[in-house]
Amino acid sequence: MTKVKAYGTPNAASDLSEMHIERRALNPDDVQIDILYCGVCHSDLHTARNEWKNTIYPSVPGHEIVGRITAVGDQVARFKVGDLAGVGCMVDSCGHCPSCADGEEQYCESGFTGTYNGPVFGGKNTFGGYSQRIVVKESFALHITHAPDLLAAVAPLLCAGITTYSPLKHWGTGPGKKVGIVGLGGLGHMAVKIAHAMGAHVVLFTTSANKVADAKRLGADEVCISTDDAQMAQYANQLDFILNTVAAPHKLDPFLQLLKKDATMTLVGAPAEPHPSPEVFNLIFKRRQLAGSLIGGIAETQEMLDFCAKHGLVSDIEMIPMDYINSAYERILKSDVKYRFVIDMKSLG
Amino acid sequence: MTKVKAYGTPNAASDLSEMHIERRALNPDDVQIDILYCGVCHSDLHTARNEWKNTIYPSVPGHEIVGRITAVGDQVARFKVGDLAGVGCMVDSCGHCPSCADGEEQYCESGFTGTYNGPVFGGKNTFGGYSQRIVVKESFALHITHAPDLLAAVAPLLCAGITTYSPLKHWGTGPGKKVGIVGLGGLGHMAVKIAHAMGAHVVLFTTSANKVADAKRLGADEVCISTDDAQMAQYANQLDFILNTVAAPHKLDPFLQLLKKDATMTLVGAPAEPHPSPEVFNLIFKRRQLAGSLIGGIAETQEMLDFCAKHGLVSDIEMIPMDYINSAYERILKSDVKYRFVIDMKSLG
Repeated sequence: MTKVKAYGTPNAASDLSEMHIERRALNPDDVQIDILYCGVCHSDLHTARNEWKNTIYPSVPGHEIVGRITAVGDQVARFKVGDLAGVGCMVDSCGHCPSCADGEEQYCESGFTGTYNGPVFGGKNTFGGYSQRIVVKESFALHITHAPDLLAAVAPLLCAGITTYSPLKHWGTGPGKKVGIVGLGGLGHMAVKIAHAMGAHVVLFTTSANKVADAKRLGADEVCISTDDAQMAQYANQLDFILNTVAAPHKLDPFLQLLKKDATMTLVGAPAEPHPSPEVFNLIFKRRQLAGSLIGGIAETQEMLDFCAKHGLVSDIEMIPMDYINSAYERILKSDVKYRFVIDMKSLG
Repeated sequence: MTKVKAYGTPNAASDLSEMHIERRALNPDDVQIDILYCGVCHSDLHTARNEWKNTIYPSVPGHEIVGRITAVGDQVARFKVGDLAGVGCMVDSCGHCPSCADGEEQYCESGFTGTYNGPVFGGKNTFGGYSQRIVVKESFALHITHAPDLLAAVAPLLCAGITTYSPLKHWGTGPGKKVGIVGLGGLGHMAVKIAHAMGAHVVLFTTSANKVADAKRLGADEVCISTDDAQMAQYANQLDFILNTVAAPHKLDPFLQLLKKDATMTLVGAPAEPHPSPEVFNLIFKRRQLAGSLIGGIAETQEMLDFCAKHGLVSDIEMIPMDYINSAYERILKSDVKYRFVIDMKSLG
């Protein structure tokens, strides 16, 4: 085992601060990654503050990790020392249930092991990317094929990228499809970029009139102010798919009404309190569907990284030092970031 | 035009009573049906009492109609005088929108014309099956191939049958699939029979321990008392599809948790007040879907009738005279019917 510097919190009420954690000695199938950058996801804040009531303390968040391989176990075949590598939301799963066999470890029947906060359904704690180094099974590490100078902006792809890519692909986003993206935050801005790169006609829904120009720059073909009923009415029954990235509780009905027959709105944000209940009539009258989606499998995460590298897609980021994290959390709560904070891990020294 | 006896109500507060209505003179593509039996659907009650806030008065409910053709227009090709015929929830639609072109008139973009209460989205009123006679386009009339002595019990297939058949088929019910049916009322008991005939393993969920034996008689392989957490836990992540027929507001989460990855629960009951809002986590963690479904198209209704005739399926009914309808409504509100009232229209005579 090795001791490394990290940033975390001993309880829900405290700010995050420097601490030391232990990383395991390499197993034969492990890689050791020295972390260069780590994106800051809203889930980090939810977990640090125990807003989902499942946090194991001490808590060291961070699951948008990129870095360089500094050691490999004897059986590691896919990575070598010096390679760039990424780690997303998962570091293990059972490996043999139907979901794992399908390459969808995120839906592992035994519950995957989160990169931080341990197995999702209980068990030993794990520590995330707000740290100098991580040791993971090579099967949960990803190759980075973007240009090295883009590395910091690649980090958010490991959660925000795959969380939007997976449902966009699953529900058939592509040429000839009109796809709505609700919300222009960390997830939403990646969803706009990815849906555009997949060839869809992208309509961005936002409550903020001042995000219109930026949404178009990011790849939206149209922008609709979702608080304007007249604008919303223009899209009634028009959309083939909606990806709703907003985690704050909000009315789903105005968006469900925009779906065509048989179309789906998929939620990827997890509100701390439920959304107002949708009207059943809005589902019944067009056989519409309301769904959820959770990140993506490891193979699909690699596919997403390669897709983004090919299309030159990265996150729009604001780089911060590690000791700015508590301020960053406050700014996330005010949606005051365009569009993802990324920690420069050199700052942890 | 011809004047016929009917049973309806001039306003939301009054009981239903005898009245006279006019039926149009036959158009070249119309058939005239002398009504023999009409099933009593919960929607009849919702409409008579304006519980969905869209009732046009006077209101004559009834959309589970079977009878005999007594006249045909000059261009009618598929029916002749003396044929048995059925009419369900729709009597017209635009005929050219993408939904109509797909044979899914129930999702007509202009709104189909309901058998009673006129166009669903506004327009001239229509009068339903609580009457001696109806005149409809032949394209909205169905052939009845059941044995004539089963006719009364066929009537509920026109709404309860197709409303359950269509989603069961759409979501792939068949051999090797474990399908949950929630609620054992008018819709639920047909869903159990149809899902069983489709070859699925059927699990019936009910709050009533005294319905267990009956559910098994109807075709359920297993019965789960949905208020018993231990029984419910046995089905966690087990079901390929759930058809939820309960219109009363109830918690959806305990049922969503029973779905496998990627599986759907479809609502066919329309509550007057929304269900408690489902937890987004229950959708996200298995990429589950919550959907709605509305009756079925005309071609699919014919397919359903032929399927039921082939498998010997009809509704379990209690026959009533027309003037019992107000008492029947009160008993429907107490779920005191096994499982569908059917009006013997001779009693209006």
